[in-house]
Amino acid sequence: MSWHLRADEELINPWRTLASRLVYDNPWITVREDEVLRPDGRPGIYGVVQYKNVAVGILPVDGADVYLVGQYRYTLDRYSWEIPEGGCPVGEDPLAAAKRELREETGLEAGKWRLAGEAHLSNSVSDERALWFVATELSLGESCPEGTERLLVRRVPFGEALRMALAGEITDALSLLAIMRFQLEGGPESLRGG
Amino acid sequence: MSWHLRADEELINPWRTLASRLVYDNPWITVREDEVLRPDGRPGIYGVVQYKNVAVGILPVDGADVYLVGQYRYTLDRYSWEIPEGGCPVGEDPLAAAKRELREETGLEAGKWRLAGEAHLSNSVSDERALWFVATELSLGESCPEGTERLLVRRVPFGEALRMALAGEITDALSLLAIMRFQLEGGPESLRGG
Repeated sequence: MSWHLRADEELINPWRTLASRLVYDNPWITVREDEVLRPDGRPGIYGVVQYKNVAVGILPVDGADVYLVGQYRYTLDRYSWEIPEGGCPVGEDPLAAAKRELREETGLEAGKWRLAGEAHLSNSVSDERALWFVATELSLGESCPEGTERLLVRRVPFGEALRMALAGEITDALSLLAIMRFQLEGGPESLRGG
Repeated sequence: MSWHLRADEELINPWRTLASRLVYDNPWITVREDEVLRPDGRPGIYGVVQYKNVAVGILPVDGADVYLVGQYRYTLDRYSWEIPEGGCPVGEDPLAAAKRELREETGLEAGKWRLAGEAHLSNSVSDERALWFVATELSLGESCPEGTERLLVRRVPFGEALRMALAGEITDALSLLAIMRFQLEGGPESLRGG
C-alpha cells in the first residue's frame, strides 16, 4: 500500500509557479525568480540558475595513466586540478563537445569513447546537468586553449589521481565522480585486452 | 624545471577583476557580474553565483542499509532520490547543520559522525562548497520537514543505493559522491566491529 502511494507521489509536482521573471542573463546562464506556492501551500520565492550548456567531462586514460588539467578557478579564487571539462551548447552532440574540449585543453584525441555517467551538479538552485566520458586509445595532436583558459596538463598514474581525489586535493565534483566511478569499474586494469 | 614553473603557476591568478556589480540577491544566493581581463588579457565578463550556505549531505548507515529521501526538485521539474541534504549558513558548524538536516528530513539521530569528503559542486559558475558525512549508530526520533520540502524516506540495502547510483537512477552529484566513496572505502562491511 505504501508503495502505491509512493509511486503516485513521484508524479506529483507539489510546487506551484505563480509568476516568473528574468533577473539576469549572460552567454552561459540565466537567473530567474519565480513566485511560488511551496509544498506546504505557503507563498515564497525560488531563484533558479539555468545553464545554457550541458557540462561535459572527459577522463583520458592511457595505459595506467590519466591526464589532469590545472587552472585557476575564478569563482573560487584558487587553483584547481581537474579532468578536462567544457560546455556543450544546446543542440550540440555531447560526444562532439567532449572531443572538442579534450583536444582544446590537452591536445589529445581519442580513438575510443564511452559515456560513463550523468549527474545534476547542484539541484537545489540550478538545473545544471553534466555528462562524463572515459576516453581511451589516445594520440597527441596540438593543444589550443580558449582565451578564458590558461591550463597546465599533467599525466599521472590513475592511482595518483585517485589518491588526490580521496585526499581532498581534487575537489571539483565532476572530476571526483569520474575518478571514483572509474575505480569502482575496475580502473585501468578493466581496459586491458578490451 | 617544469615542476618549478608548475609550482609558480598555481600561485598566480591570471584573471583581473576591473569592476563588480550585484545583479541578484535572495536568501540563498547572490549573483554578481564582474568586468574582467581574461587569462589571455582580453576583456570579458564573468557571472558568479555565490552561495550563502555550505551544502551538507549525510549518508545514514544502519547495518547493511542506508536511508534515502525522495523529493520533487523544483529546479529540474522532476522527482529525485538523494541522500539527506541541507544548507549550513555561514557561521554554523557543518556537523551541527548535518545533524539538524538529518533529523528534519528523516527523524533520525546518529551516535557517530564522520566527515567523509568535500567538493565544489559547479566551479565554472558558482562557489558552492559541499561537505558530506557518514552517520551511524542511528535511532529514530521524529521527522519535521521544512515547508519547502515534501519528502519520502526509504530504507534500502546499501547495495541497492549503489546500483541506483551506477544505473543513473540517482543523479544528484552530492549523493553520488557520498555513495561511491562509501563503496570505495569498503561499504557497510567496513563498519563491522568498528
